[in-house]
Amino acid sequence: MHYEKLENGTVCSAQGFEAAGIIAGLKESGKEDMAVIYSATACQFAGSYTQNAFAAAPVVYCKQVHKNSKTIHACIINSGNANACTGRQGWTNASHMAADTADLLNIDPSEVLVFSTGRIGVPLPMEIVKAGIKKCCEARNATGGAKAAEAIMTTDTVAKSIAVKIDIDGTDVIIGGMSKGAGMIAPKMKTAEKEATMLAYITTDVLLEEGLLSEILDQSLNQSFNRITIDGDTSTNDSFICMANGLAGNSMIRRGSAEAAKFQEAFNYVAAELARMLILDAEGATRFVEVKVVGAENDGDAETCAKAIANSLLCKTAWFGADPNWGRILDAAGYSGVNINTGEFNLYYSGVQVVKSGQDAGLSEDEMYKLINRDEIFLEVDLGLVDGEYTAWTCDLSYEYVKINAEYRT
Amino acid sequence: MHYEKLENGTVCSAQGFEAAGIIAGLKESGKEDMAVIYSATACQFAGSYTQNAFAAAPVVYCKQVHKNSKTIHACIINSGNANACTGRQGWTNASHMAADTADLLNIDPSEVLVFSTGRIGVPLPMEIVKAGIKKCCEARNATGGAKAAEAIMTTDTVAKSIAVKIDIDGTDVIIGGMSKGAGMIAPKMKTAEKEATMLAYITTDVLLEEGLLSEILDQSLNQSFNRITIDGDTSTNDSFICMANGLAGNSMIRRGSAEAAKFQEAFNYVAAELARMLILDAEGATRFVEVKVVGAENDGDAETCAKAIANSLLCKTAWFGADPNWGRILDAAGYSGVNINTGEFNLYYSGVQVVKSGQDAGLSEDEMYKLINRDEIFLEVDLGLVDGEYTAWTCDLSYEYVKINAEYRT
Repeated sequence: MHYEKLENGTVCSAQGFEAAGIIAGLKESGKEDMAVIYSATACQFAGSYTQNAFAAAPVVYCKQVHKNSKTIHACIINSGNANACTGRQGWTNASHMAADTADLLNIDPSEVLVFSTGRIGVPLPMEIVKAGIKKCCEARNATGGAKAAEAIMTTDTVAKSIAVKIDIDGTDVIIGGMSKGAGMIAPKMKTAEKEATMLAYITTDVLLEEGLLSEILDQSLNQSFNRITIDGDTSTNDSFICMANGLAGNSMIRRGSAEAAKFQEAFNYVAAELARMLILDAEGATRFVEVKVVGAENDGDAETCAKAIANSLLCKTAWFGADPNWGRILDAAGYSGVNINTGEFNLYYSGVQVVKSGQDAGLSEDEMYKLINRDEIFLEVDLGLVDGEYTAWTCDLSYEYVKINAEYRT
Repeated sequence: MHYEKLENGTVCSAQGFEAAGIIAGLKESGKEDMAVIYSATACQFAGSYTQNAFAAAPVVYCKQVHKNSKTIHACIINSGNANACTGRQGWTNASHMAADTADLLNIDPSEVLVFSTGRIGVPLPMEIVKAGIKKCCEARNATGGAKAAEAIMTTDTVAKSIAVKIDIDGTDVIIGGMSKGAGMIAPKMKTAEKEATMLAYITTDVLLEEGLLSEILDQSLNQSFNRITIDGDTSTNDSFICMANGLAGNSMIRRGSAEAAKFQEAFNYVAAELARMLILDAEGATRFVEVKVVGAENDGDAETCAKAIANSLLCKTAWFGADPNWGRILDAAGYSGVNINTGEFNLYYSGVQVVKSGQDAGLSEDEMYKLINRDEIFLEVDLGLVDGEYTAWTCDLSYEYVKINAEYRT
């Protein structure tokens, strides 16, 4: 492990990054609802976005920036309104958000990314948004990271920030990040064009070769945001962005170098922690569940099977009830459609075998209950074939999830 | 409409069918848990079964009967134990159930189908089963249909039976049926080899050309069991069976004839009602929801989209809360992966347009609330492309579903 976690790390931990989180007035709760991340130094950037056919206006806007711009300076983010399914006006409004931000920060609109999260189908109240952007940009400073993480929350109960330090060739490099999203979470992203309303931002002062950041972000996805699912509902607004301003003063990291691997490891950790925090704060969740599938015909099959188990209503409610019963897990694996050697199928609860060769391994209900009645449940599912594997992170399904989503209006 | 619904119709309504439902002692509740359907006259038969990789022993057994036998006389069914994931012993036990039933009814074991539903992974207590089969076969009579429907229940709250009468060429023909299943319901069956733990049985005294029954059952599927989903969890034991003993005395129905079409219509009605009853009694459900997708590129896309909406946790909890918000429906359609003309996307609640060309149609929340706060919600989703269409039936997701499945052990 070549990285060290910082106390109270945020998106401002890396050199040269400023941020703010303020109250614009978009949320009924009256809480913080607008954030900005800014670097005076131009940043190499990489991002992945939802593949939802109803991708929101800001997502469409951002994808265009990825096509046309080599660097960016800022991300402007509002919560409380998703600016999704808002037609041409939505697109115009996203453009206005970028333009207003650029004006205030004295940069080009093509160097601003725009994000929205919240209710779908309601036009943005642009007067409130415009005033909010002004307030937000003016409030930015080098200690604004924690407030920014608060401002992007929707049904989240805690703000999610992190930062690590790594030594790159004798120089300290920082990677900071924040994320949000407690429901409508089932990201399936690919770099530059990917799925997830989670929002996640990573800022770093590392200096790296052009184009490398995008590869690093891409590589991190299957070990972070793409492995999580709360409810199987992939949002219209999911976005994961990284900005690198190169201010750390390290010698430039090149593709394939040992330093690149070291940076990747730290980056993966930050991305994974940001993803994991989403599950730990998932709507109504009482348990974190890791579903590791091994012995699949290939990694794709392992993913399909892991996600089927992770999204199964019957598995999720069983975990909530600490039901030791493994029948629903086999059932979900069985209907996932992947090849299974049922006679060689094995299942482990926290390392202890509960199903052997497709049948009960003989543990008592009490023994299994002790393995499943935990805050963090670790399942290993062996399909009995070759070496395909995949790990998904999910949570249980509680009364509270139903309550939140029968009452909250997206 | 060429058929007439009978009062108190059951699987015994057609001539020559006997049934029983008795207490064998497999259920903790102490309620009826073993049923038999029997016809002294050999029956043409057709069936569809789960495609789950962990298909239960009785399913594997039944499929073999389909391969080897032209006719059957009986179905023996237990609830309380699924005989799934029980290895070689499970298969032996299913064979014993068939053999015991055959002995008692003086028929060949190859003329008996075997079904189990209940907890997965626990070996059948064969002494109890054997005694139960004896009691059940002895108790069979021409009025036992209602008790049989009770005996196959698991988390069902009401027994589900129906029968209709049709005039075929001047002769009365009866189609009766029963079904069970309130959770782990997402059938995806194809004739002779299909998916669904729903269990459904149709008995009829019609006389028809050899092989035609299987085609009729197949044709009914997309309008009945295959269109329902309660929780998206496809069971290891789902089975849908039809027996036809030919005792009605009608002139034999031939493929492609007007009488075949008439019979098909009535059969479809019975199958659809049996499927619909499953949704109406779905675990914890408070609303029946029809999701009709039109304007898709093809019927397959329409099905994928309809099922994505029907299985979306966010949609299901919104329906529970009578949340008029259509954002989650568009979101689910958007991530279903099918082609959508988002600019021509329309959505209707009970015939009233709420989304026009991908944007809010301007109804007030109150107006929408009145359309959605109903026992039966009808959604029409127009993808704005060609003429592919599909209708799914589902239900909302309530606290009660979570309660039942956090406490019940499958």
